[in-house]
Amino acid sequence: MVSSQPPSTSPVSKPVAQVRYELLTLGDELLLGLTANTHLTFIGQQLGRHGVQLQRNITLTDAAAAIVAQLRESWARADVVITTGGLGPTCDDRTREAVAEVLGQKLVFDPETERAIADRFEKFGRKMTPNNLKQAYKFERGEVLPNANGTAPGLWVEQDGKVLCMLPGPPNELHPLFTEQVLPRLAQRGLLLDHEAYVQLRTAGVGESALEHKLQPVFDRQGDALEVAFCAHAGQVDCRLSSPSGRLSEAQLQQIAAECALLLGEDFVCFGHDSLAQTCADLLRASDGMLAVVETATGGMLADAFTNICGAAKFFAGGCVCYTHDAMSQLLDLPEDILLQHGAVSAESAVALATGAAEKLGANHALAITGFAGPCSGSKAENPVGTIFLALYSPQGVWAKKLSYPGPRAMVKQRAVNAALDWLRRELLRARSGECMTSRRLGSMQ
Amino acid sequence: MVSSQPPSTSPVSKPVAQVRYELLTLGDELLLGLTANTHLTFIGQQLGRHGVQLQRNITLTDAAAAIVAQLRESWARADVVITTGGLGPTCDDRTREAVAEVLGQKLVFDPETERAIADRFEKFGRKMTPNNLKQAYKFERGEVLPNANGTAPGLWVEQDGKVLCMLPGPPNELHPLFTEQVLPRLAQRGLLLDHEAYVQLRTAGVGESALEHKLQPVFDRQGDALEVAFCAHAGQVDCRLSSPSGRLSEAQLQQIAAECALLLGEDFVCFGHDSLAQTCADLLRASDGMLAVVETATGGMLADAFTNICGAAKFFAGGCVCYTHDAMSQLLDLPEDILLQHGAVSAESAVALATGAAEKLGANHALAITGFAGPCSGSKAENPVGTIFLALYSPQGVWAKKLSYPGPRAMVKQRAVNAALDWLRRELLRARSGECMTSRRLGSMQ
Repeated sequence: MVSSQPPSTSPVSKPVAQVRYELLTLGDELLLGLTANTHLTFIGQQLGRHGVQLQRNITLTDAAAAIVAQLRESWARADVVITTGGLGPTCDDRTREAVAEVLGQKLVFDPETERAIADRFEKFGRKMTPNNLKQAYKFERGEVLPNANGTAPGLWVEQDGKVLCMLPGPPNELHPLFTEQVLPRLAQRGLLLDHEAYVQLRTAGVGESALEHKLQPVFDRQGDALEVAFCAHAGQVDCRLSSPSGRLSEAQLQQIAAECALLLGEDFVCFGHDSLAQTCADLLRASDGMLAVVETATGGMLADAFTNICGAAKFFAGGCVCYTHDAMSQLLDLPEDILLQHGAVSAESAVALATGAAEKLGANHALAITGFAGPCSGSKAENPVGTIFLALYSPQGVWAKKLSYPGPRAMVKQRAVNAALDWLRRELLRARSGECMTSRRLGSMQ
Repeated sequence: MVSSQPPSTSPVSKPVAQVRYELLTLGDELLLGLTANTHLTFIGQQLGRHGVQLQRNITLTDAAAAIVAQLRESWARADVVITTGGLGPTCDDRTREAVAEVLGQKLVFDPETERAIADRFEKFGRKMTPNNLKQAYKFERGEVLPNANGTAPGLWVEQDGKVLCMLPGPPNELHPLFTEQVLPRLAQRGLLLDHEAYVQLRTAGVGESALEHKLQPVFDRQGDALEVAFCAHAGQVDCRLSSPSGRLSEAQLQQIAAECALLLGEDFVCFGHDSLAQTCADLLRASDGMLAVVETATGGMLADAFTNICGAAKFFAGGCVCYTHDAMSQLLDLPEDILLQHGAVSAESAVALATGAAEKLGANHALAITGFAGPCSGSKAENPVGTIFLALYSPQGVWAKKLSYPGPRAMVKQRAVNAALDWLRRELLRARSGECMTSRRLGSMQ
C-alpha cells in the first residue's frame, strides 16, 4: 500500500502527498453545540495515522441548499470528500438527495439494503416504520458500504477523478465502517501511506513557550526542512515534528525527536499518543505494581482514566469516590478525628485517604485527590474554589501537595487528574532508575 | 438586548434573524484528531442559547496561505466571523499576520498587553521567553479583549459592516473571554436574542425512527411552519422544534413540545439540556433520596456523571470502582461465595454489589454496573464482550437486568451508564407517582 505514485486502479491520478482530503460533517446539532464533533477527531486521527492529513473540515446545517453549495465547492477543490450524517430515516436527513443533485446522478432503490434494514428490525424485535425505507436508496453509479451496526449503510462513489464517501452519523456505526471498509478501500487505491504523518512527543509539567525555548536549538539545526507544531491541553503539551517537503525522512524525524526527549528529561512522557494513565500503567506493570485511587472532587474521573485501559485489572485494584465523611470512614476506615480536625480538603486527609485506599484494596501504590472543583463549593478563605490536595502513596513513602487551578469545574477536574497521574509517573520513573542504580552499584562492588 | 432591528450602534445593519455567524477553528491538531473541537461545541451552544445559530464551522490548517484564503471567503459571506487558536507564542501561530493581510490593516505593538504578559509570568514565577512578545501585537484599528487566564489576549475588529472576533485556543482562556466579553459585546450591538433558537425534548429508551413515527401526527398539524430535527446519542434521542420562518412563536413551540411529552409518557426525560444524571439528581433531591454506586466495567464513569453536578453531596453518598474480587469483598463486605459461584459478571453479583454499596454508604438507592466492556475481556460464551449486568436497589426492592451492547469500549461504557441512569430515573418517577396516587387515594377516602 506504500507508493508515491498511485496504482493504476486509483481514481485519483496524483502522488499521495498531494491528495487533498476534505471532511463535511452535517448536522445542526453540531453547530448548536449539542453534540461534539467526534467524527473530525476520529477520521482525522485515522487518516493522520496513515500518513495523510485532512486539509479542511466543514460543519454545516442540514439545510439542503447549504449542503449542495458546500459540496459543489469541496468537490471542485478536493480529491477525496468524506461526509458524515444526514443518512438517517427522519425528515431532517436530506444529504442523499443533495449529493445526487451535485453529482448529476439518480437515486435508485436497493432491495438488498431494504432486506438488511428489515432483518435488523426483526432481530431486535422492533417494528419497522415506513420512514426507514429512504435509507435503502443508493446512487445509480456507486456502491453500498453495508452497515452491521445500524440501518443506514455508507455510500461510495468514484467519479470525475475523485472519491466521495458518505458515512452514517452514529459513532458506533461510523467507526467500524471506517476502519473495516473505508481505510482498506483508500489503501487499495494508493491514497494512504503506511506510517504516521508526523512524529509526536508528549510532555507534562512544562509550558508551551518554555518548551519551544528549550527545544529551539535542536530545531534550528534543521532549518526549514522541519515543521514544528505545539498543542497544549490541561497541563500537557504535545510537540509534533513533520517534514511536509519530504526533505527529512521518518527515521530522521525520529532521531530529532529522540534528541528532544533527552533534553527534556522527566518532563518527556512518551512518543506517540499514549495517555498519562497508559504511561503509568506500563510502568506499574513493569514493576508488578498495583494501584488504588480515591477521589472526592474528581468523582470517578481518575478511576475512569485507568479503566479505559484494556486489562486494567492487572495493575488497578479499584477506587472509591467519597462524597461524605461517612463514606470515607465506612469504605476506608478513615479516622474521624483527621476529618473533623482538618476537614476533607486538607493535606492530612489526602494522606489518610491514599493510605486507607492502599491498605483496604491491597495495593502498593495509591493516589488521592480531594478538593473543591467549584463553582458552588470552596468553604474557607484559605481553600477557595480550585483548591486541590493530592496525595501519593508508594513503597517509598506517602506525600501530599496543594495545587490551585482557575477555570470551570470540568477543567479543574481534568487538570487535577493529570497532575495526579504525572506525579505517579515521575515517582514510578524515579523508583525504576533508583533500582537500576542500586543494582548497578551492587554489580560494580562484586 | 431583544430587538428585531439592530440598534444604531451596531456595525451590522440587518435584523438579528438574518445575521450570519461563521466560526473558523484553526489548528493542525484538530484536523489530525489530536484534540477535540470543543470550541465548536462551546461557542455553538452559547450562541444557540442566545437565539442565533452558527451557519458554518470551518476547521483548517495552521498554514498562512490557507488561513488567508478561508478568511477572505468567510469575510465575504458572513456578518460575524469568530476565529479560535493561532494567537499563541510559538512558531506555528500565524493567524494575526494572515488576518491583518485580509483586513488591510497593520499590526501595532501594544505596551499594555506586553505589561499584562510580563505580569503573568512574574505572578507564576516563570521566566518570560522572548517569543511571548508576539502576543502583544494588535490591529491598528481594533480592540484588545484582555485575557485573565493566559498570555494571548483576544482581538476585536468592526470593519466593512462586519465583526471579527479572534480568540485564544486554550478552553480555560476562551470560555471566560467569550461569556464575559464577547457575548455582552454582541448583545450590545443587537446581534443576539434573549431566548434559545429552538425548543428541545430529551427522550430515552425509544429509537429515532420510532420517535418520529410516534410524534408525526403532532408535527403534521403544524405543516411547514414547524422545523423538526432529531439527534441520537448512546440510548437517548433529542428532538428539537423550531420555526425558522418565525410563523410559530416560542410559546407555541413550547405548547407543541408539551403535547409531544404527554404522548411519550415515561420515555420523555425533560425539556432542554439536562443530563439523565441531572434528572435523577432532581428526583432524588425531591424525595430526600441518597444514592450510592458501584462499578466494574464502567470504572468511575457513573460516579463521574453525578459528581459533575454541583452540590452532589446532598444526594450522592459516593461510589466504588472494583476491579478485583478482593476489592469487592474488602470495600463492600461482598460474600465471597456469590463471586465464586456466579462470577463478578452476573445478575447475582450485581444485586449483591448494589445492596452492599447501599448498606455500606448509608444510601436508600444504589446502582451497580458490572460487565465486559471489551475488547480484551468477555471470558465465557454466555457473556461475550459487551455483556452488562445492571442492578437497581431502592426502598421498593432490588432487581438486576442483563444487557448487551455492540461497539467499541467507550461506547459500551457510555450506553451502560445511560441505561443505568434511565432505569433509576424511571424507578424514581414511578415511586413519586405511586406516592401521589397513595396520598390521593387516602385523601378521597377521608
